[in-house]
Amino acid sequence: MTKPSVASVEIIKVADQVISNNTDLLAVEEPLEIRLGIGRADAREQKSISVTMRTPGHDFELALGFLFTEGIIKQHDEIVQIKYCADANTIENQYNIVRVELKEDAGIDFLKLQRNFYTTSSCGVCGKASIDAIHTLCDMPAEGSVSMSASTLLGLPQTLRAQQNVFEFTGGLHGCALFDAQGKLQLSREDVGRHNALDKLVGAALASGLVPLTQSVLLLSGRASFELLQKAAMAGIPFVAAVGAPSSLAVQLAKDMQMTLVGFLRDQRFNVYCGERRII
Amino acid sequence: MTKPSVASVEIIKVADQVISNNTDLLAVEEPLEIRLGIGRADAREQKSISVTMRTPGHDFELALGFLFTEGIIKQHDEIVQIKYCADANTIENQYNIVRVELKEDAGIDFLKLQRNFYTTSSCGVCGKASIDAIHTLCDMPAEGSVSMSASTLLGLPQTLRAQQNVFEFTGGLHGCALFDAQGKLQLSREDVGRHNALDKLVGAALASGLVPLTQSVLLLSGRASFELLQKAAMAGIPFVAAVGAPSSLAVQLAKDMQMTLVGFLRDQRFNVYCGERRII
Repeated sequence: MTKPSVASVEIIKVADQVISNNTDLLAVEEPLEIRLGIGRADAREQKSISVTMRTPGHDFELALGFLFTEGIIKQHDEIVQIKYCADANTIENQYNIVRVELKEDAGIDFLKLQRNFYTTSSCGVCGKASIDAIHTLCDMPAEGSVSMSASTLLGLPQTLRAQQNVFEFTGGLHGCALFDAQGKLQLSREDVGRHNALDKLVGAALASGLVPLTQSVLLLSGRASFELLQKAAMAGIPFVAAVGAPSSLAVQLAKDMQMTLVGFLRDQRFNVYCGERRII
Repeated sequence: MTKPSVASVEIIKVADQVISNNTDLLAVEEPLEIRLGIGRADAREQKSISVTMRTPGHDFELALGFLFTEGIIKQHDEIVQIKYCADANTIENQYNIVRVELKEDAGIDFLKLQRNFYTTSSCGVCGKASIDAIHTLCDMPAEGSVSMSASTLLGLPQTLRAQQNVFEFTGGLHGCALFDAQGKLQLSREDVGRHNALDKLVGAALASGLVPLTQSVLLLSGRASFELLQKAAMAGIPFVAAVGAPSSLAVQLAKDMQMTLVGFLRDQRFNVYCGERRII
């Protein structure tokens, strides 16, 4: 049980000077709060650690992926259980609060958690400090791992688009997908928030025991920001391709981590910003 | 003095099976930390309240717009001065930390500030609670104010695109602009983060004494999320048009605030989600 991802709304459509009443489908955007349950079984503490505006669906994967890509948990088995919070105070919030029960010995230090947000998330004050922190947190294969031919690469966006069900109806969602070296789609997710789409993807992969994703190519439907590269690095993904433009700091992070970064992958062309050795 | 908005990088370009070495321009993405200086002159306190990944440029407007659209300040004259922080600990951060000096009697209550973030920003746990909070915080003209003809509306995206200098070179930026009822451009801003572009725009308008912007139409280059509608409402903008799709919660907020919301404004068409009385 979860909330719907699409909502229908009555609109007035104006097209080529013709006005008509119509029904439009919208991508649903609702807040998701992630809470951690920590400590000894006889004295559980609860901490709220994040609220994000997301499209409902795959909420547990979102929570899992967020905790992992932000460096709060190191592996899947630190988690005992993920569930919707029973004490959500209104019907509207019934599926908007997720509680993640951590093992007694998971040993999350909340002061460290606070610092973590400052050094590894998009909230890092210095891009450079963030990049250094990521180095210490993830095992990126410096050489080799996955590689892909240029012709396979050029075909990925079409495959992703075919998978984006909600986007197809609403035009309102960011998508991302994992592919193997032969261009076979492994997994895809979509969301109003691009970081959420990637957290859902990484969360699903983590739950399936696929992380680190050293044999995968990540495709992003939009632009490649620093935050997305950071999350890809945390998941061990060595090869990121974006349909849109990368930012300066995204390129810097990809270079420092010896990742491959491709941008403007569309219309039979692309730009390689670094790591061209992985493109055949 | 500020950091550059565009960075140049060496790339390998693959287009129609031709491979070439090239130089590409990227939108710069760097962190900006906003700090508040508060309290009596002889005992100033400093509090860090936000870090956002932004494109350098118009940093003081960004800080000002953020403080205003998040409800932390109510008017421009609560601020004594905005400057770059002298104690930034590295050269890289020299222009990445902004300190906003508030008047002695500005009376910011930091506990309230914390709560504010939960009720008025995109971090509000319940969309409905957020919408209620916005109602109490802004004076939206229920009726009339600005109105615009459909043909004028259709011409806005082209005007914005012509203004987006950095986007033109990098393809990497979100833009937003204010227009008057006749479709005359009043102000535009761009940024890697769409919320930053809008904060810069509102900050600039606030500094010029133009807020509340009850006579303006706001154009967004991309999708219309809840957060953007929320910021528009805080600035008193009754009419928002987006080139992309709106989300469900964006439509709900616009309806509740009796705003006009237009989406998919492109290719000689648009959808009206609510407030059609402002379209002639």
